[in-house]
Amino acid sequence: MKLARVIYEGRESYARIEGSSLVILDGKPGEGFSPAGKTIDLAQARFLAPCRPSKALCIGLNYRDHAEEFGLAIPSSPVVFIKPATTLLEPFGNIVWPELSKRVEYEAELVVVIGRLAKNLKASEALDYVLGYTCGNDVTARDLQPKEGQWTVAKSFDGFMPLGPWIETELDPSDLEISSFLNGQRKQHSRTSNLIFSVPELLSYLSRVMTLEPGDVIMTGTPSGVGPMARGDEIAVEIEGIGRLVNKLA
Amino acid sequence: MKLARVIYEGRESYARIEGSSLVILDGKPGEGFSPAGKTIDLAQARFLAPCRPSKALCIGLNYRDHAEEFGLAIPSSPVVFIKPATTLLEPFGNIVWPELSKRVEYEAELVVVIGRLAKNLKASEALDYVLGYTCGNDVTARDLQPKEGQWTVAKSFDGFMPLGPWIETELDPSDLEISSFLNGQRKQHSRTSNLIFSVPELLSYLSRVMTLEPGDVIMTGTPSGVGPMARGDEIAVEIEGIGRLVNKLA
Repeated sequence: MKLARVIYEGRESYARIEGSSLVILDGKPGEGFSPAGKTIDLAQARFLAPCRPSKALCIGLNYRDHAEEFGLAIPSSPVVFIKPATTLLEPFGNIVWPELSKRVEYEAELVVVIGRLAKNLKASEALDYVLGYTCGNDVTARDLQPKEGQWTVAKSFDGFMPLGPWIETELDPSDLEISSFLNGQRKQHSRTSNLIFSVPELLSYLSRVMTLEPGDVIMTGTPSGVGPMARGDEIAVEIEGIGRLVNKLA
Repeated sequence: MKLARVIYEGRESYARIEGSSLVILDGKPGEGFSPAGKTIDLAQARFLAPCRPSKALCIGLNYRDHAEEFGLAIPSSPVVFIKPATTLLEPFGNIVWPELSKRVEYEAELVVVIGRLAKNLKASEALDYVLGYTCGNDVTARDLQPKEGQWTVAKSFDGFMPLGPWIETELDPSDLEISSFLNGQRKQHSRTSNLIFSVPELLSYLSRVMTLEPGDVIMTGTPSGVGPMARGDEIAVEIEGIGRLVNKLA
């Protein structure tokens, strides 16, 4: 199913998308979902980012061609950084250009949403702990990202993590087409089969470091073709089987 | 005041310490606190980490002598990384040795707890947004911390962020003695006047990147003298005017 988080009648709810309708649900990630007895038109709701992660774990350099475009070595274990919750941005929300940066770039990513408390997973069982998948944009102030230092500042401006538009719960993540479009022009184009560390491998590795909690997200890395945006640009991340996440740079 | 978070009668509460008593409070960071009409003996409560940050921002290499002991350049702007909420550990809680690491080290740090929503602060006003200060241990799997890569994995094992034992709300953070003691022997010893980036400078810088929320913490960096622990070791972080945070490595 396609699972969205929406504002409806002034309160946050999860909802299942059925055609042009939204079936409002009770529940949240980790608790399961059940129909709340209300179905509304898609147009009646505002979409929020489809989860509120307690942590957003991001994988760097996880497509070979992207590591190469930055002249960086192919990593031997996953490169991990964290985006704080204050980076969360809803579908169609505006990315705000930060005063401190002169160069703001998009990075299209497949995002894994955790469904069950997970610790020390084997890769073979890891997908059982996934609620589903969504599109993400790991927005980056490239001029503030040092090659040999910590990436947190470059990645952590408010609104630098658009997610959405919904979570697709029935999906095999192993070979999905992923693209970004800047003002309608395709800029990134790859398949998740090109990930250096696959989704099950990432979940196994990360869960050996830390407990993954329902609603946590893993941004799995971006393919080559990243680049800068200008004010007013529209950036879209599209992933096969999920949909299209669209935001503007204000 | 000394503000603790405790488990009392099965529920989490804030409490003010008065001698050997705890005045149970209603409220939480950002909301203010008021007495709940109950005073108990200190020994009746279990201490928790004194806040539950939505983000823990950690500053690397913020004491000149510590940068030098790692052979790293003095940074020209704050080096920032994030520890996830799952690293939180209470006073007297056990740090658990992770299977993936062969070398687990302590790092004594002054920790700032945010009291009010903060964005784009000037250094001159930054301290008005602080709830108070506590002791922290930025536990690190040193063998997993690359010199030129991301530090997240090395810093993010469950329980790698002991905080406490309480928040001291009346304190000038500019020149406090800070020490760590391994099995009673002093290992680190400095003063917060040696910070490269002071508390007001850090708050100003970080709040220009992201919104700081009540209960968020900033770990301000560690002085020289960090080193490994062995199983069964007791590690204490002591800061003038706050108190002593004690944990064991299990």
